[in-house]
Amino acid sequence: MKQIDNRQWILKSRPHGSLSINNFTFQETKVDIKKLEDGNILMKNLAFLCAPTMRNWMDPPSKNLYPSIELGQPILAPTAGEIVESKNDSYPVGSKISTLSSWQDYEIIDPKLRPLNLISENLTPVESIGKFGLNSLTGYFGLTKIGIPKSGETVVVSAAAGATGSVAAQVAKLLGCRVIGIAGGTTKCSWLTEEIGLEGAIDYKSENIDSCLKELCPDGIDIYFDNVGGNILRNAVQHMAKFGRIVLCGQISTYDSEQSASGPEDMMRLIYGSVRMEGFLTRNYAEEFSQAIQQLQHWEEKKQLILKEDVRKGFESLPQNYLDLFSGSNEGILVVSV
Amino acid sequence: MKQIDNRQWILKSRPHGSLSINNFTFQETKVDIKKLEDGNILMKNLAFLCAPTMRNWMDPPSKNLYPSIELGQPILAPTAGEIVESKNDSYPVGSKISTLSSWQDYEIIDPKLRPLNLISENLTPVESIGKFGLNSLTGYFGLTKIGIPKSGETVVVSAAAGATGSVAAQVAKLLGCRVIGIAGGTTKCSWLTEEIGLEGAIDYKSENIDSCLKELCPDGIDIYFDNVGGNILRNAVQHMAKFGRIVLCGQISTYDSEQSASGPEDMMRLIYGSVRMEGFLTRNYAEEFSQAIQQLQHWEEKKQLILKEDVRKGFESLPQNYLDLFSGSNEGILVVSV
Repeated sequence: MKQIDNRQWILKSRPHGSLSINNFTFQETKVDIKKLEDGNILMKNLAFLCAPTMRNWMDPPSKNLYPSIELGQPILAPTAGEIVESKNDSYPVGSKISTLSSWQDYEIIDPKLRPLNLISENLTPVESIGKFGLNSLTGYFGLTKIGIPKSGETVVVSAAAGATGSVAAQVAKLLGCRVIGIAGGTTKCSWLTEEIGLEGAIDYKSENIDSCLKELCPDGIDIYFDNVGGNILRNAVQHMAKFGRIVLCGQISTYDSEQSASGPEDMMRLIYGSVRMEGFLTRNYAEEFSQAIQQLQHWEEKKQLILKEDVRKGFESLPQNYLDLFSGSNEGILVVSV
Repeated sequence: MKQIDNRQWILKSRPHGSLSINNFTFQETKVDIKKLEDGNILMKNLAFLCAPTMRNWMDPPSKNLYPSIELGQPILAPTAGEIVESKNDSYPVGSKISTLSSWQDYEIIDPKLRPLNLISENLTPVESIGKFGLNSLTGYFGLTKIGIPKSGETVVVSAAAGATGSVAAQVAKLLGCRVIGIAGGTTKCSWLTEEIGLEGAIDYKSENIDSCLKELCPDGIDIYFDNVGGNILRNAVQHMAKFGRIVLCGQISTYDSEQSASGPEDMMRLIYGSVRMEGFLTRNYAEEFSQAIQQLQHWEEKKQLILKEDVRKGFESLPQNYLDLFSGSNEGILVVSV
C-alpha cells in the first residue's frame, strides 16, 4: 500500500467577527494512492491563491449559494499544481492544472465533479492563479461584462489598488474612461494616480467619500465597481448617474463581520436613476477565459497594464499570509508557493 | 383682462411619516389668460391619476433625482385634459392631451419644457391615464424590458392586485411564465388565483413570506417584480434563482415613512447568485408607448387581460381619494375625474 505524507491546514473553528490565526490547525496525514479510482487524478498543489471570498466559505452553511467548509476539513482554495498520478487519459501525469482544491499538499480529484483547467505552456503555476488568475479575470469580466463601459464615461473603483480593483481600473482606462480609485492610505492613492494614471484617488481612511465623489464626479458615476460594499457602496449609490451600473464584485468590508453585507440605504435612488446593480461570478465566463488571458498578457507585454503579484514561500505560513489580505498589507495578488 | 376661476389643492405642509389630509389645503385662484405667451397652451385638467410615487414628491428636496413639490404649490400629478387656449400651432384648441400637470383646474404649459402626449382617438381622457396610462405601461415595460421573461420561468410580483402589479403578473402569464402574486388579504389573493389565474398567491398580512416563497418557488425566483420594497424585498432576495432579475418598480411600503427605502440585507446573495437588480422609469420607453398601448388594448379586447379602473368623481375629494392608495382600499387604477 503506497502512502504519501500530506500536510494540511484545516478549519478548527469558525471565525466570529475577525478571522484569527487560531481558527486554523496544522496536521499531517497520509494519502493512500491505492485508493485512486478509475477516472480520478492525484494533484500535487504547488501554489495557493489567497482570495478574500474564501473568508465567506468559513462561515456556517447558510441560505447563500456559496460553499461552507466543514469543520475539521482543509480550507478550500483556488490552487495550481501538477498531476502526479492519474487514472484518466484526458489528464496524464505531468499535466499542469489549476482548480478549486484546498490547503493540503495532495488531493484526489474526480474531474467529472470538479472542473480542471489545463495551464497553458507559457504560464507558470504561480502566474496561472496569480497575475493571470481569478483576481485579474474578475476585474476584467466584471468591468467589461457587467459594467459595459463606454469611452468617456466616469468609472469609480473601490479597493482600486487591490488585485481585482487595479485590473478593473486599468482596463477602464484602456477603454477610454475617466477613472477614480478609492483606496486606503496615501501610498496606495499615489500609486493610483502616478503609476497607473487614474484621474483621481480618494483615501477612504482620511477623506470624506461623499464630498470627494461630488467633486471628482460632477456629472455622476456611470460605473461603480464595488469590491468593498458597506459604507462606500452606500455613498456611491447616491452619486450614480442616470443609467449607471454598479458592478457587485465583492463586499470585503463586511466579510470579517458577524453582520451580513447590507445594501443601499435608499433604493428609490436606484429607481429614479434607472440604475442597474448586478452581481456576478467570474466562472460564468469560463468559456472566454483563455481569450481574456491573452488580452491581459498582450496589455502587460506592451506595458499598458501593471499586474502585481505578491508571492510568498512556504506551506507553513498559509494562514498568516491569508490574514494579511484583511489588513491590506499585501502588495498585489497574494499567492503562496511551496 | 380675461380671468378664469381656478381651484387648487396645494401642499400646505410636508408629511412626517404617514401622509395626512392636513398636509393639503384647498384654495381658489384666478388664471390670467392674457399672460399666455407665444408657444404656450392653457390646459384644462379633466382627470387626475393617483400614483403612489407622488408621495415621494412631497418630501423635501434631496439628493434624489425626483422632483420635490414646493410648499404652497399645487400637487404635481399625471393628468389628462383638453387644450382650451393655444398659442402653439402644434397643439390646437380642442386637442386632448395627457402630461405631468398638477391638482388644479387649469395650467399654462410650455410644451418645450414639458412633453405633452396627444391622446389617441379611441381613448377617453380617463382611460389615457387610467387603464392605458402610466400604471399599466409601468407593469408592461418593467416586466418586459427589465425582467426579460422567458417562457417557463417563475415570476413573483408584489402588490400583485394593484394597478401596476396586476399588469406585470398578467403579462408574465401571457408570456408563458409561472406567476406567484403577493397581496394583502384573502379577497385580493382569491382574485389573483381565481380571476387572473396565477399559480399561487401569498397574503403578506397573514402568511409567512419566507416559507411561502420556499414552498411556491422550489427552484427559486427568476424574476421578482418589486412594487413594495422593505421586508418583502429582503425575503425575495434570499430566494432568487441563479441569474435572477429584480425589477425595482416601487417601494410603496416605505413612502409613508421617515426612513429611506433600505435595500437587501445580504448583498453577497446577489453576487453568488449572479442576480441583477435594476431600477427604471417608465418614461425611458416613451417612444414605445403607443405600440405598448395597442398591445394592451388587443389583450384586453380578447379578454386575456383585466385592467381595473377605480374612477371617482370630484375635484374636492382629491386628497381623500389619494390617501386611499396607502390603505389599499382602491380597487384598481385610481383616477379622479371632474
